[in-house]
Amino acid sequence: MALVVQKYGGTSVGDADRIRSVASRVVGAAADGNQVVVVVSAMGSFTDELIGLAQQVSSHPAPRELDMLLTAGERISMSLLAMAIHDLGAEVLSLTGSQAGILTDSSHGEARITRIRGDRVREHLDQGKIVIVAGFQGVDPDSRDVTTLGRGGSDATAVAMAAALDADACEIFTDVDGVYTADPRVVPDARLLKEVSYEDMLELAASGTGVLMMRSVEFARRFGVALHVRSSFHEQPGTWVKESAMEEAIITGIAHDVSESKLTVHGVPDQPGVAARLFGNLADAGINVDMIVQNVSMEGVTDISFTVPKNDNAAALAICERLVPEFRAGGVDADPNIARVSVVGAGMRSNPGIAATMFRALGDRAINIHMISTSSIRISCVITADRVEEAVRTLHEELVPLDEPVEEHA
Amino acid sequence: MALVVQKYGGTSVGDADRIRSVASRVVGAAADGNQVVVVVSAMGSFTDELIGLAQQVSSHPAPRELDMLLTAGERISMSLLAMAIHDLGAEVLSLTGSQAGILTDSSHGEARITRIRGDRVREHLDQGKIVIVAGFQGVDPDSRDVTTLGRGGSDATAVAMAAALDADACEIFTDVDGVYTADPRVVPDARLLKEVSYEDMLELAASGTGVLMMRSVEFARRFGVALHVRSSFHEQPGTWVKESAMEEAIITGIAHDVSESKLTVHGVPDQPGVAARLFGNLADAGINVDMIVQNVSMEGVTDISFTVPKNDNAAALAICERLVPEFRAGGVDADPNIARVSVVGAGMRSNPGIAATMFRALGDRAINIHMISTSSIRISCVITADRVEEAVRTLHEELVPLDEPVEEHA
Repeated sequence: MALVVQKYGGTSVGDADRIRSVASRVVGAAADGNQVVVVVSAMGSFTDELIGLAQQVSSHPAPRELDMLLTAGERISMSLLAMAIHDLGAEVLSLTGSQAGILTDSSHGEARITRIRGDRVREHLDQGKIVIVAGFQGVDPDSRDVTTLGRGGSDATAVAMAAALDADACEIFTDVDGVYTADPRVVPDARLLKEVSYEDMLELAASGTGVLMMRSVEFARRFGVALHVRSSFHEQPGTWVKESAMEEAIITGIAHDVSESKLTVHGVPDQPGVAARLFGNLADAGINVDMIVQNVSMEGVTDISFTVPKNDNAAALAICERLVPEFRAGGVDADPNIARVSVVGAGMRSNPGIAATMFRALGDRAINIHMISTSSIRISCVITADRVEEAVRTLHEELVPLDEPVEEHA
Repeated sequence: MALVVQKYGGTSVGDADRIRSVASRVVGAAADGNQVVVVVSAMGSFTDELIGLAQQVSSHPAPRELDMLLTAGERISMSLLAMAIHDLGAEVLSLTGSQAGILTDSSHGEARITRIRGDRVREHLDQGKIVIVAGFQGVDPDSRDVTTLGRGGSDATAVAMAAALDADACEIFTDVDGVYTADPRVVPDARLLKEVSYEDMLELAASGTGVLMMRSVEFARRFGVALHVRSSFHEQPGTWVKESAMEEAIITGIAHDVSESKLTVHGVPDQPGVAARLFGNLADAGINVDMIVQNVSMEGVTDISFTVPKNDNAAALAICERLVPEFRAGGVDADPNIARVSVVGAGMRSNPGIAATMFRALGDRAINIHMISTSSIRISCVITADRVEEAVRTLHEELVPLDEPVEEHA
């Protein structure tokens, strides 16, 4: 008998009809002879509504109480799902994060899972029950306070639960069909990937592919949990994320991200410690800096460019303006009208020509490259925002193979 | 330092403004030098909304899961209240019923409190914190499942918490000013009672005065907890419910109830076992029978009349119709257009003339009495529904003293 962990996101349990549809699917998996653990998020936008209420009663909601509040969201979705499954005649019960033994540290709002005490879940599974577990939440065993795991927390719950129970698969049900070679809204003939390696998925997630959070992928890789990312709206298989067992494609896909802003500090004297001081100040302000590019020094001065989330643009600009006189730099400017386009593929390691092909393809279209950064399996270019869709289509056409390298022939 | 338990109902925490207002009140009580435990209900009609959701996903929601669902309601109100109190600079935390050590039996939806393990609440109080406790909910220590306490459950939580912590007072904040000598919407010059004994309050609650549920009053009496029923909308004192230490008024108040329906089984052969079988069948169907009156037998047959909640009228009628042939009775009829008016006062025990005065007062107005039942401190008459307000006003005028027996003169 296989043990499957299924995770359903907020859209998948967004209303009563969707909940009943998920219930059928869960009961189907159990009827196929599987032990099933279901991890659910809060319904649709309910978490946002709760945050809105918190902001109405408090200017700075106390983190412990905000976690207590937000955990009501999964409590509602999980008990409704349990009722719907019960109505279909299956044995089922729902458990909060705390009841399911999801132990975390004490960082309210962004707690890390430290351990899963899986005996209560296992006991109910062994009694033939379907077990529903609240995603996104856990308990700090020292204070006995409930905690939440932050963005992507329900995926993390599912992966951790799958690891702790040594599950045969962890299915992440979502509102898209899986992972594509590029965003299908931008590239209509983008191809659904049958599988993708953990490391490619990490780079894709880091580069703007929003299907999975990096955190859950890292977790899955660390514990060797195979993820199956698939749609909750139909029965077709999606994308497996796992240790790659085959020759990898040179290019896995094209990702893009329009959520960032670019800042450039001009004419910085090329002295030790300047970059450390700049990025130290940004980090102290809680600003998450992504790409950093520093040009070669010309006549003792250099330009430092970096990207930050658009939300942090104003704060980052203020910090730079404060530092410009201290650095005796020339000035600073910010450009929010940028996009990042990335080519990702572990096969690039043994194919050094990809960067040149990418730059040539963009150049042929007169798409100007503002910044470049690379890892061993990714090349990212910052370009003007209004050319990003054209850039993604061009790179997809030039670089992504028409078929997956290994087809499943009978 | 006094220890006060305050309970706020759903209307009192119905929106963000009301929650902030309750927060000020709680912080005020703490600033006056009290240790404060606050018990809260779910916001406004949120529980009803959750029940609506449950009915959308399931024809018969599983009781365990319905409890899991409903407990989200207090979770939301208590954490919001904690945030609002925290914003006012006080130390505070919220605890679920389970965290607050409220242990119950396993009857989902109508669990009974079996024990309070008060050490966690006490520990936080001793650290100088205000402690907010979710009303209406507890945990079954055997299954570790959450339970709900049924109607009036938050009052029961407050009383039980006050008893367990040996609190100096238990304040029940509500949307009315306290307990009146009659419903002030019916009798404009009805008087707010400064205090009322447990036993009078029990009879008033049983007779339709909706301020407190009988269950909480019974609980308060058993553990000697003094209740202060008062408005959350202003600072005026309300009504103390406690062991009466003074000479009691003959009449405490007039209660009325229009929520019931009357059924009469006619021409029942006066044989042993008939009543037992009739009311046994009704009880098996979960129908809560209130007043029962059986006339003196005339020529070997009698009439049995009783009242049931209007909701149960159809079901009760069907059961009676099924039993009429078996009993060889004459027939059954149901009358939903009735009201019950009751005169309540522990002083009646030593004043036997009250019943006669009551019947005469109603007779003078040509208000026909359909049924009569009495306890040692209450007389109830069933009359036609359209005369009930007139009956309440008449009885209040004739029987309720203008002033309380003991006035507080300086």
